[in-house]
Amino acid sequence: MSSLLVSALACIWVLICSNGVVGYVKYNTGAVTVDGKLNVHLVPHSHDDVGWLKTIDQYYVGSNNSIQGACVENVLDSVVEALRRDPNRKFVFAEMAFFQRWWETQSVEIQDEVRKLVDVGQLEFINGGWCMHDEATAHYIDMIDQTTLGHHALKTQFNITPRAGWQIDPFGHSAVQAYLLGAELGFDSVHFARIDYQDRAKRKVDKSLEVIWRGSQTFGSSSQIFTNVFPVHYSPPNGFNFEVSDTDPFPIPVQDNPHLFDYNVEQRVNDFITAAITQANVTRTNHIMWTMGEDFKYQYAETWFKPMDKLIHYVNKDGRINALYSTPSMYTDAKNAANETWPLKTHDYFPYADRANAYWTGYFTSRPAFKGYIRMLSGYYLAARQLEYMAGRRSSGPNTHSLGDALGIAQHHDAVTGTAKQHTTNDYEKRLAIGASEAEAVVNSALACLANSTLKNQCVTPSLTLSQCQLLNISFCPPSEEDIPEGKSLVVVAYNSLGWNRTDIIRIPVNDANLVVHDSTGNAIEAQYLELDNVTSNLRDFYTKAYLGISPGQAPKYWILFQVSLPPLGWNTYFVSKASGKGKRRKSYVSSVDPPQNDTVEIGPGNLKMSFSLASGQLKRMFNSKSGVDIPVQQSYLWYGSSTGDTDDQILQNSGAYIFRPNGAPPTLVSRSVPIKVVRGSLVDEVHQQFNSWIYQVIRVYREKEHAEVEFTIGPIPTDDGVGKEVITQMTANMVTEKVFYTDSNGRDFLKRVRDFREDWSLHVNQPIAGNYYPLNLGIYTTDNKSEFSVLIDRAVGGASIKDGEVEIMLHRRTLFDDSRGVDEPLDETVCVGEKNCEGLTIRGKYYIGINKLGAGSRWRRTTGQEVYSPPLLAFTHEKIEDWTATHLSKATSMDPNYTLPPNVALVTLQELDDGSVLLRLGHLYEAGEDAEYSTLAKVELKKVFTGKNIKEVKEMSLSANQEKSQMKKMTWKVEGDKGGEPMGIRGSPVNDSDLLVELGPMEIRTFLLNF
Amino acid sequence: MSSLLVSALACIWVLICSNGVVGYVKYNTGAVTVDGKLNVHLVPHSHDDVGWLKTIDQYYVGSNNSIQGACVENVLDSVVEALRRDPNRKFVFAEMAFFQRWWETQSVEIQDEVRKLVDVGQLEFINGGWCMHDEATAHYIDMIDQTTLGHHALKTQFNITPRAGWQIDPFGHSAVQAYLLGAELGFDSVHFARIDYQDRAKRKVDKSLEVIWRGSQTFGSSSQIFTNVFPVHYSPPNGFNFEVSDTDPFPIPVQDNPHLFDYNVEQRVNDFITAAITQANVTRTNHIMWTMGEDFKYQYAETWFKPMDKLIHYVNKDGRINALYSTPSMYTDAKNAANETWPLKTHDYFPYADRANAYWTGYFTSRPAFKGYIRMLSGYYLAARQLEYMAGRRSSGPNTHSLGDALGIAQHHDAVTGTAKQHTTNDYEKRLAIGASEAEAVVNSALACLANSTLKNQCVTPSLTLSQCQLLNISFCPPSEEDIPEGKSLVVVAYNSLGWNRTDIIRIPVNDANLVVHDSTGNAIEAQYLELDNVTSNLRDFYTKAYLGISPGQAPKYWILFQVSLPPLGWNTYFVSKASGKGKRRKSYVSSVDPPQNDTVEIGPGNLKMSFSLASGQLKRMFNSKSGVDIPVQQSYLWYGSSTGDTDDQILQNSGAYIFRPNGAPPTLVSRSVPIKVVRGSLVDEVHQQFNSWIYQVIRVYREKEHAEVEFTIGPIPTDDGVGKEVITQMTANMVTEKVFYTDSNGRDFLKRVRDFREDWSLHVNQPIAGNYYPLNLGIYTTDNKSEFSVLIDRAVGGASIKDGEVEIMLHRRTLFDDSRGVDEPLDETVCVGEKNCEGLTIRGKYYIGINKLGAGSRWRRTTGQEVYSPPLLAFTHEKIEDWTATHLSKATSMDPNYTLPPNVALVTLQELDDGSVLLRLGHLYEAGEDAEYSTLAKVELKKVFTGKNIKEVKEMSLSANQEKSQMKKMTWKVEGDKGGEPMGIRGSPVNDSDLLVELGPMEIRTFLLNF
Repeated sequence: MSSLLVSALACIWVLICSNGVVGYVKYNTGAVTVDGKLNVHLVPHSHDDVGWLKTIDQYYVGSNNSIQGACVENVLDSVVEALRRDPNRKFVFAEMAFFQRWWETQSVEIQDEVRKLVDVGQLEFINGGWCMHDEATAHYIDMIDQTTLGHHALKTQFNITPRAGWQIDPFGHSAVQAYLLGAELGFDSVHFARIDYQDRAKRKVDKSLEVIWRGSQTFGSSSQIFTNVFPVHYSPPNGFNFEVSDTDPFPIPVQDNPHLFDYNVEQRVNDFITAAITQANVTRTNHIMWTMGEDFKYQYAETWFKPMDKLIHYVNKDGRINALYSTPSMYTDAKNAANETWPLKTHDYFPYADRANAYWTGYFTSRPAFKGYIRMLSGYYLAARQLEYMAGRRSSGPNTHSLGDALGIAQHHDAVTGTAKQHTTNDYEKRLAIGASEAEAVVNSALACLANSTLKNQCVTPSLTLSQCQLLNISFCPPSEEDIPEGKSLVVVAYNSLGWNRTDIIRIPVNDANLVVHDSTGNAIEAQYLELDNVTSNLRDFYTKAYLGISPGQAPKYWILFQVSLPPLGWNTYFVSKASGKGKRRKSYVSSVDPPQNDTVEIGPGNLKMSFSLASGQLKRMFNSKSGVDIPVQQSYLWYGSSTGDTDDQILQNSGAYIFRPNGAPPTLVSRSVPIKVVRGSLVDEVHQQFNSWIYQVIRVYREKEHAEVEFTIGPIPTDDGVGKEVITQMTANMVTEKVFYTDSNGRDFLKRVRDFREDWSLHVNQPIAGNYYPLNLGIYTTDNKSEFSVLIDRAVGGASIKDGEVEIMLHRRTLFDDSRGVDEPLDETVCVGEKNCEGLTIRGKYYIGINKLGAGSRWRRTTGQEVYSPPLLAFTHEKIEDWTATHLSKATSMDPNYTLPPNVALVTLQELDDGSVLLRLGHLYEAGEDAEYSTLAKVELKKVFTGKNIKEVKEMSLSANQEKSQMKKMTWKVEGDKGGEPMGIRGSPVNDSDLLVELGPMEIRTFLLNF
Repeated sequence: MSSLLVSALACIWVLICSNGVVGYVKYNTGAVTVDGKLNVHLVPHSHDDVGWLKTIDQYYVGSNNSIQGACVENVLDSVVEALRRDPNRKFVFAEMAFFQRWWETQSVEIQDEVRKLVDVGQLEFINGGWCMHDEATAHYIDMIDQTTLGHHALKTQFNITPRAGWQIDPFGHSAVQAYLLGAELGFDSVHFARIDYQDRAKRKVDKSLEVIWRGSQTFGSSSQIFTNVFPVHYSPPNGFNFEVSDTDPFPIPVQDNPHLFDYNVEQRVNDFITAAITQANVTRTNHIMWTMGEDFKYQYAETWFKPMDKLIHYVNKDGRINALYSTPSMYTDAKNAANETWPLKTHDYFPYADRANAYWTGYFTSRPAFKGYIRMLSGYYLAARQLEYMAGRRSSGPNTHSLGDALGIAQHHDAVTGTAKQHTTNDYEKRLAIGASEAEAVVNSALACLANSTLKNQCVTPSLTLSQCQLLNISFCPPSEEDIPEGKSLVVVAYNSLGWNRTDIIRIPVNDANLVVHDSTGNAIEAQYLELDNVTSNLRDFYTKAYLGISPGQAPKYWILFQVSLPPLGWNTYFVSKASGKGKRRKSYVSSVDPPQNDTVEIGPGNLKMSFSLASGQLKRMFNSKSGVDIPVQQSYLWYGSSTGDTDDQILQNSGAYIFRPNGAPPTLVSRSVPIKVVRGSLVDEVHQQFNSWIYQVIRVYREKEHAEVEFTIGPIPTDDGVGKEVITQMTANMVTEKVFYTDSNGRDFLKRVRDFREDWSLHVNQPIAGNYYPLNLGIYTTDNKSEFSVLIDRAVGGASIKDGEVEIMLHRRTLFDDSRGVDEPLDETVCVGEKNCEGLTIRGKYYIGINKLGAGSRWRRTTGQEVYSPPLLAFTHEKIEDWTATHLSKATSMDPNYTLPPNVALVTLQELDDGSVLLRLGHLYEAGEDAEYSTLAKVELKKVFTGKNIKEVKEMSLSANQEKSQMKKMTWKVEGDKGGEPMGIRGSPVNDSDLLVELGPMEIRTFLLNF
């Protein structure tokens, strides 16, 4: 038979009717913005997670593609090539941890080409941090550090300073991000996709997706940033994806060759214009941005640029609208030039829900052990850099860089969040452990050098070996557990990274019941013995095997406790020795519970008292005998059953790594009647409570502290009933809190939270629990008309006040189903000894409860917060006391011995850079109005901080130290409701070269580069 | 808790133990072959099907990716870029239909770059045809044409001539491919993957995968080619695939950055060496080839080249073996230089099975309508090019290029094979229809011009309009069906593209019962009327609607038949007019069956007689009253039920588009008793047989022909019983054939086939039917000690002789399940009028049965074969006879009127090229020893062929006309068993400029470029 003439006729028609060009077409891609037309800013980008489903290195080299087809090396290789093909093409890149992997392996020729592309603005770095950090569970110091790491590389390699914040994927957005990691970095704008679905819906109606965001209550308009919230997501509009391996949807080429079938230019141009107009309808000004990319796209960049070239060419030829290659900073310039008035946004964008019943508040707590490890190392990194600086940075040998790198990576919004796959999380932890191990060597070496009084200035190879105990919290510490060699003592060098004097009780596992402790002046000091509990010795046994691969041997019998007193940025030395006689040594050891006197037992060797019901074993009351604050308070553990979706869900929604969704039942009380044990001593009283077989708690009240320290040990969470469990501690105080509570922003500002309420829209409550959770990095507090009830935490967690007077913190989670946000694993952490002996993860951590008079809580929170973040750093060795003291400075500070930082100022960074200059950050700890005395201008005398050094130069820098403060430019914006004279906060004056006095206004962080 | 120190330690170890380099690594990729080492030739390639699951244009632009993620534009873009990055990198490309799409849209700069890459050998074209043609179902003229199309582009653009045949994917390999489309093209080598699994197994044991193949029995060692059969497939060894989106298996990067985790250089090098040694163990010499590519790979070429760079670098650094970038021609040079003795291979590699029960013999017949359309247009293209040349090629207006392009594409090994998806097949057909439509305009215009005697030399715009009837076979022909205007006649111009005089009976549908036919000299000639049968009128109605989208109106009442007598390369004109009187005109019209005389009816107005049983309605005997050949023969239709897999299949194997697998039952006889109708006339006798409701057959015996023409109409094949059916015609002659039969190779050489036997290995028979099928393009014959029984076909089909004396041809197939070779569709063709009125495809075609004395069959087969391939071309108009004859040459030839080509020579090509030169191919039609008289040196006088032209230059060229014959180089090879003096065939001497006599030895095809 013959053939398909009907189709043939159709196709002849195509050949005749199409108006496309034949042969080579030079696309006109050089469009700039056009006044009076709708301008579509095409912003080519690839969102490259610094680890998620795969590890960072797997993503970089493109291995393990069975999990995800992604290779960042391909992205960068092909983008550079594509940019070279057409000088009008642009691309923005964010994640420096990836870029540096690539850069370091490029030829000089390629590096030169890239420098050119950067110089002419074809390749623009946005954000420019080591990763795109999370904003809920990252500490502000970690955010600053990881950003500085990336910005330093960009400054060094390209002499550039990024202008745009690009937080497109993090799951909600913080106030600290807006003003500190935004405006204070010198960013003009920040861009992101994820805000609450209800918020977005309203903002689309109001055309208020783009706002001027003033994240700081203290700085107000002086730290504002233009904020662009995308109307849908950070992908292109439907049908304008062009990835080589895209399948959902499959890319639709722009087929402009009339010699081939399926010519579709007109159709594609019309689709483009339709999509642009849809977006323009929810956007102010005639500038809209299309985010031309997605996760790990541009594996072969040409697949994107070629159709974009064509679209720009044909859309502009059509003429109805204008399309152009652009970047976030070009877009921001266009927005700024438009002279529009913008809505004002304050506070933050937490919590985030992407649809009903899908509050991303689970990740505030997900992987609590990992979060705790990161936070612990964050403080350690701060201290280690101080010591590295003091001892002098080495060009060879261990340094703190790998810990900085690992911590930088760990701030990624799928790392510290706990939303990466388990194997990726293992990789983060491995990197942290390597970094910690190297930093530990730096610290050991630096402390040994610095303490050695026989060395003058120059510290090369210390003669003695110090060691540290990373698993001290589970009583594993070989140098203290070992029998002290005859004639020697256990030398404990305690370093204080705070800028203030401090005293703390330290505890060390020992086996000898007859030890005495001497301080550096030779005086015997008070010590307290505590028997090691079974829970700790079991943890020690299992986790030492699991994490170190070694059997830890017999558990030590005791903890020995004593108080250390440490100078600012300095150390003190203590000597633990065998007692020469017997008898009176164990005076402070209390072996058993007090005999019950009545139905209440009260503890507290100092001002703070806590009373417990003997019948229930539960906390009843806290009161401070000095301040008179007296609050009835119960504390208990409960768990929410994790939802596995509702039958009436449109889309099944489990509780999982990202999302907290309780199953609707009231939380289950772990225990109504708790066996308790009370241990008293001169330094500390302890109450041990066994809530159930997998929750153990010790409450400690120190003689010298006005707060309670609560150490919890939770796990393995049982799931043999098929129910995921999300464990909270709940504190119920008898306070009229009127729905209000306060949570911190990245460990810095406190924001007011109101239950079942949002400032920006009328909240429709569908998750009364999960929708009221907020991220904590420092703590949470409530107030009534008399008192403040505060809880500080030791790692990122989620917290809420679900009922008036109540505070709850989610401490641990174990779920059995994935929550459909991509990680595709249930959050079901296990720990194994060998391959088979696995159990659910047990976590041990601390929180701190403070009760204060109304208005007095901030001092406790700010000071204690610093102490929790920067605990004394302990290093051990064995030596004869007299030998040690003869050759060592037992107590010293790097500052003027008579100086400390003011109580409202903290040392945020002290670090020697590669070029020998020193990076210093000082931070005021109080917000405007937070404390009557301390929310004021503070002064730091650099000459006394750097006593003995000759400060040649002090340059004040932007927060990430990539540009001089004086050169930072600020855009001006018209804001709805502004009447002029908006509060701007107080800032210190420029530093005078002669007195070198640094003034800091409330919440101010100032960054300096010093040369000596 | 703390972290994963165990892993940390492992990774510190990695950092220390790895010996990789840091920073930029300049890979040493410049390796050449090394004597004494195993050399691994890495041949980067992308196998780009010219249509299969998607259409050619969809593959090119990368649309319709939901079917397959494939974009050839990406391949070429990125390969060129990758080659520019390192001058040692190489790439081979085959499919010029794709390359030209790309080339035409490149900038001058890119074109220049590509020219450089070609010049230095980085980019090597292999095969270089328009597509990678099939070898079973393609006609040798189509193979030559499509190769010439590609080679012409390569010659013009790059001045290169490909050296290597690259038939990696076709499903079996033909003798004609080896010697004609191989050696005669100037190829040194041919490379492919697909041979029978039993053959491959034996060859691996013998190290005989690589052979010297002498495909021609006539030319023997003078047309041999080095043949490289891959040990597995045309993919890389397992684990060495590197496509950006590969998933099965996922690529494993060569991770050589010791700063990152998972450094794996040693492991990858070891894997490489292991794979190389495995292959070396089945290969002669120390050179092996790795085909580094697969279907549509190199979407982003850098993903392949980067790891190959590294492997070459590190493998050679390791030093145990040698790896290098290479090409098939470099590989062949190395093989040639090795001075090895190679096994000899003769005949071909058909049929192909890739495992037990999986004989790829279904595709010999799959999509018979499409195959028929291609074959019909192949002959038409030959004729149209002749006319285009004669009338002078136009620079504007219609030309034959688009038909050549469409035919070129249609030879692809998933096109003419019938193994593309339906939508892709539609696309091929659409292209053919467009091409045919344009060629039809060329023919109409050229014939009108040439015939017009008032025009001198210059033919621009013909004054009259000729038209043709593409659907003549189903009686749709508006110009002949219409009432002839008063005073005018239906003018029939019949063109003969053969080089000989011919006579033929043509048949035209008419409505008028009183027509007379006059020849060009004004004589009334004999005509015969036949009533149109219902089967034809029903087909006409349905298919005209389906294919043309128009309702054809009332079916014509009659066929009018008359004999045309045509000069070589010329035309004659006939006039069909209304008879002036009535009465005697319908003398030849026979309205009904002969009254039965006895139980046998005999037909045949000439020498050939056929007798039928009236009882059964079936053929009983054929005999020739002149030659005396007399053969009892039955003929019937049967169908095989398509297998849907056996329960004991290891892998389920259905019968489908590729694979013929009958279900094991004997074929079902369609009908034991067939109603027949006998129609007799002076020109032809016809027997109409209705075998069943969907098989209709007309046997015609012409007065002037010594064969039977069988027209079959088959379909729609019913499948409502759930059984796929594969319909055969079976002819059972009473001949002792002793398992032997003969089938052609691509319509040219005949090869001896022996049932259940293979020359190259001891066959294990698992499919006694399917495994004995061979592809037919010209025909099949059997012999006994007296006679030859031959069948010629009109399109590619599969055929066999399953029992002695029996010949069967598979004519139509309809299966209900996919056969798991990728196309993922059952071969279930339907035809629709509108969207809903669909039915299974009906096909109509012809085959021809000849009976001859032993040794006399080849003349009938060769001559009839040419006539079948090149039927008279008919063009129609209405005109007064006297007006026509006054202004037209009614009969003419472009040759000397007294000259014809010798009977053993055919005109293969006569075509004017773009530059005005003329491409001429002459082909000897007989093999050595085939015919006593004709298998001899033949002579063609060019001066008489081109009478009236001044031949300025005659250059003899290679088969594809891309190099002068005298410059073709031949490699010498040592072949096992050669003793010197191997037969080489006879070839004509070089053409002498003075007499311009072309000599042709048996089977010789000579190609010339002529300038006038």
